[in-house]
Amino acid sequence: MQAREARLRIALGIEYDGAPFCGWQSQPSGCGVQDHVERAIASFVAGDAFIGVTCAGRTDAGVHALEQVVHFDVDADRAEMAWVRGVNRFLPDAIRVLWMHPVPDTFHARFSARSRSYQYLLLADRTEPALLHARAGWFHQLLDVNAMRAAARILEGEHDFSAFRSAECQAKSPVKTIHTIAITEPSPFIRFDLRANAFLHHMVRNIVGALVYVGAGRLTLDQFAAVLASRDRRHAPPTFAASGLYLSGIEYDASFALPQRAPRAPWLN
Amino acid sequence: MQAREARLRIALGIEYDGAPFCGWQSQPSGCGVQDHVERAIASFVAGDAFIGVTCAGRTDAGVHALEQVVHFDVDADRAEMAWVRGVNRFLPDAIRVLWMHPVPDTFHARFSARSRSYQYLLLADRTEPALLHARAGWFHQLLDVNAMRAAARILEGEHDFSAFRSAECQAKSPVKTIHTIAITEPSPFIRFDLRANAFLHHMVRNIVGALVYVGAGRLTLDQFAAVLASRDRRHAPPTFAASGLYLSGIEYDASFALPQRAPRAPWLN
Repeated sequence: MQAREARLRIALGIEYDGAPFCGWQSQPSGCGVQDHVERAIASFVAGDAFIGVTCAGRTDAGVHALEQVVHFDVDADRAEMAWVRGVNRFLPDAIRVLWMHPVPDTFHARFSARSRSYQYLLLADRTEPALLHARAGWFHQLLDVNAMRAAARILEGEHDFSAFRSAECQAKSPVKTIHTIAITEPSPFIRFDLRANAFLHHMVRNIVGALVYVGAGRLTLDQFAAVLASRDRRHAPPTFAASGLYLSGIEYDASFALPQRAPRAPWLN
Repeated sequence: MQAREARLRIALGIEYDGAPFCGWQSQPSGCGVQDHVERAIASFVAGDAFIGVTCAGRTDAGVHALEQVVHFDVDADRAEMAWVRGVNRFLPDAIRVLWMHPVPDTFHARFSARSRSYQYLLLADRTEPALLHARAGWFHQLLDVNAMRAAARILEGEHDFSAFRSAECQAKSPVKTIHTIAITEPSPFIRFDLRANAFLHHMVRNIVGALVYVGAGRLTLDQFAAVLASRDRRHAPPTFAASGLYLSGIEYDASFALPQRAPRAPWLN
């Protein structure tokens, strides 16, 4: 459902803390991030009917976004800062519009995306995170990060990732291309930075779960490679917690000239 | 009020997210971090009566701790990990005991402290933090960090900090020694690291407020120096938000041999 005489297609960059919401997608109870964004846009564009937004990547309950991208069609022609300030006025504290950019009708937040980037923030320590509860995953012992890096290299490139795909995944093909997996250590945290053309449902959390098994010595590199080759989810370690997962960026063709702003996480510099 | 036949003095290192609590100090409603810690200790040491704890530095509502230190006296003689796991079992997710260490009767969490360290995390950007709402301060424009560093150097050393002291401050003397103020830029964030022998009430938040004025060009270095010299709170810029403030560490004499663990914030490495 969209405004009838839609003239403008608009893209927004949105940051959110996933903890208070039931995921991106609209829910009958209205608890989705999408519900809050759609309500805020409707409140800002007073007089307009419901305006549905389309996102680049649907995040699950508890998953955060350093930069989600959405598009929608609207009549209202207003300046960039009017959009940013105006929509933010109607959003809860945990969601903020970072930028607005007019885009051509050929732009589609999901289908125009060339690649997606996710971060996973893991605390490897004997006690759970308190300061970052609901904002980091947790494993109760130190991990062999070099072994995890070696395992991550096995995943880079084009593969059938069925072993890292949830049963509910609706993607047409399990074949995706992981461009990079970088693993860094702001000790006692471990940060995973993944970039791929697209991700299957639960793919990052399943990959992190398997890499943690490698780092803990529960899975050898050969066994890890065999999990990938099996294309069978039943052979892979469990899905890791949503709390440490951040959608960190969506990459589009430079011709769309979307704003290039550094993600707002103080652990990046 | 303490256990009658107290034999052991115990110190705990504690991490907490200050957002859900009404500050460190015990309140009639039970919403203080101290209330949760005392209830958890009582639940763990079943059979013991109420055990009061003494902290190194009382934090205000909304202020976080990477490492708060407390001491208390108790009969129960148990192993370190029993204390850590046992007390954590009764704590809310936003509070975690990091370590336990037996200390001599001469140890006092507050009076034995040689210095305290605080961090302030500030987002300097046109929109408020969403991911780190309640976890970072915010200023709506870019700041001149080099000017702020120059102003910070004026504060280092021993001074009468009355201009940066809240009206409710109960400290005997306004004269304190700031050992260091380091300012770093995990852009678009600015991080302030302060270490002093002790801090007055609201001192860090008042210092950050004044440094932000310098960074925004609202206060020259001469005017900043004049604020300090005035010893008058009415001449200083407003107190900055509690949300960006972290008690990051308490330093004691090495003879107490307290555990030296890196603070668990992924923006440190």
